[in-house]
Amino acid sequence: MGICGKQSLDFDRPVYILSSSSIVGKKEGDGPLGSCFDMIVEDATVGQDSWEQGESELVKKAAEIAIRKAKLKQEDIRYAFAGDLLGQLIATTFGLKEMNIPLYGIYGACSTAGEALGLGAMAVGAGYADHVLAVASSHFGSAEKQFRFPLEYGNQRPLAATWTVTGCGAFVVSSQGSGAKITGITTGKIVDYGVSDSMNMGACMAPAAADLIYQNLVDFNRKPEDYDRIITGDLGKVGQQILLNLLLKNGYDISKQHMDCGIEIFDAGTQDTHAGGSGCGCSAVTLAGYILPKLKSGEWNRVLFLPTGALLSTVSFNEGETIPGIAHGVVIEHEG
Amino acid sequence: MGICGKQSLDFDRPVYILSSSSIVGKKEGDGPLGSCFDMIVEDATVGQDSWEQGESELVKKAAEIAIRKAKLKQEDIRYAFAGDLLGQLIATTFGLKEMNIPLYGIYGACSTAGEALGLGAMAVGAGYADHVLAVASSHFGSAEKQFRFPLEYGNQRPLAATWTVTGCGAFVVSSQGSGAKITGITTGKIVDYGVSDSMNMGACMAPAAADLIYQNLVDFNRKPEDYDRIITGDLGKVGQQILLNLLLKNGYDISKQHMDCGIEIFDAGTQDTHAGGSGCGCSAVTLAGYILPKLKSGEWNRVLFLPTGALLSTVSFNEGETIPGIAHGVVIEHEG
Repeated sequence: MGICGKQSLDFDRPVYILSSSSIVGKKEGDGPLGSCFDMIVEDATVGQDSWEQGESELVKKAAEIAIRKAKLKQEDIRYAFAGDLLGQLIATTFGLKEMNIPLYGIYGACSTAGEALGLGAMAVGAGYADHVLAVASSHFGSAEKQFRFPLEYGNQRPLAATWTVTGCGAFVVSSQGSGAKITGITTGKIVDYGVSDSMNMGACMAPAAADLIYQNLVDFNRKPEDYDRIITGDLGKVGQQILLNLLLKNGYDISKQHMDCGIEIFDAGTQDTHAGGSGCGCSAVTLAGYILPKLKSGEWNRVLFLPTGALLSTVSFNEGETIPGIAHGVVIEHEG
Repeated sequence: MGICGKQSLDFDRPVYILSSSSIVGKKEGDGPLGSCFDMIVEDATVGQDSWEQGESELVKKAAEIAIRKAKLKQEDIRYAFAGDLLGQLIATTFGLKEMNIPLYGIYGACSTAGEALGLGAMAVGAGYADHVLAVASSHFGSAEKQFRFPLEYGNQRPLAATWTVTGCGAFVVSSQGSGAKITGITTGKIVDYGVSDSMNMGACMAPAAADLIYQNLVDFNRKPEDYDRIITGDLGKVGQQILLNLLLKNGYDISKQHMDCGIEIFDAGTQDTHAGGSGCGCSAVTLAGYILPKLKSGEWNRVLFLPTGALLSTVSFNEGETIPGIAHGVVIEHEG
């Protein structure tokens, strides 16, 4: 148990995803996965005064639903590992501040769901906690305001651009459970290929995803076929092609196994979302609403879930820095 | 080993702070602790083009020095737990991106050093790693630009305001070592007393510090006298008084044990720093340069080190939100 290869851990002690929840906005609800989510909110501010407060409300509701589904109370949760895209994690802070749960705030850009589940699994796998909460959120309005242009400006978007998902996924990771088990994690490094186009985040993140998948296969001594799916967070269609090519050059063909949450969550043809969905919430709600049910039912036996993050701020971007990527991998298996 | 009370862990497996490093700016070098630090940089951009790049350079250098002092190589470090104050952790990203170390980006505002050491200790204590790196940084220029007024504007500062420390502290946390051992941690919750004055962060953070200290004493069944020092991060003089009063009301007098890194690092009388220093770097460099040597020499036997964070962004502040606080506690003991 424990250390596995260069960047991975395997858990001897059982680590389950005891429950999960997903809340999304209207556009996500209208998309191909719409019927999979626990709750769809029509109002972009979720009844609050701003997009940021609305995102916090998503965080709060998602956390409450996950805890309730686990048949637990807030005081049963020993730690929360949670993050979002906004500067200084305000969506997380104001979403969780009344929950009275010891909190590790984390930031991995859109890889946050993988980072939260990874750290949560480490805590449970070590016997530090019976139950922890892992949460990741994003919001189209608050993210556009933070990173891009005022929505009112109506800026055109290139075809490589992605659409930030409004949504929050929450997970109770536990020493008890059934159906879906975290059996290992692979922790990502920053990978920088020098891309600096913030409208092509797929290209920024694909090298980090390729690096993570390669290392996971090596560390666990597996072939792509050992996974039913290898699921990236939000590479989109442009990033997907780069990922497949990079891995092919390194001897792995994952074209049969690869799936990208950003490609699945919207219908690019009718929803005008260009390369796909993105944001911490994209992979989090897709895991909660779409992937975990397939693992629990046994339709899939083992997946590598690796949310992908583009590490930039408007300050770093405006100062001419590149946009490095990172990815955090979680191996989730069906348990009958 | 493991779970200890409501919010704490104790480690049976030894967890050492094998090495530490501290780099600070000129003002910190001129302060009372100036002679304690490994490196003082005169140039605010550290030879780079911007304050943000300068802060990244501090991160890079501090990490390199800590690893070198531990007589290790980068590839010996299994994980880095690191964060800073800037939106989307850009100081950390660009400081560590070439180090090729699996990274958990974390955000706890100025409590980040405590969060990094806590998570690092958890990883080592569980046997997930032999060596991990914990890093926290801040920079006066980049933080003022991010949170307050343009420096050129020369805005006046109320007496309750603190001065963001330019500095980075890095620590190699290991299963081997001697001198200073992490024997336990207490993980903080968000505590919100409804204070919304960003020029009085001490008042925002003091309730979270009081809550953490109280819980630590209860969880470990200790009295304040069981610690040589109880060391907060950056409450400053205003926050210190609130902390002492809050704990007194709850039956604990820590006036003899309490020390605050923000009060120690500057001479408020001659350095015009008002209530004291602040920023993730404040507690990190004070731990590395001042506290650890006293523990290693045996002058102090046991301290509770708890960096304190104020959870705000300019967006949340401008939208009228309060400024909740959080603190993360680490128990560090001398080992002869």
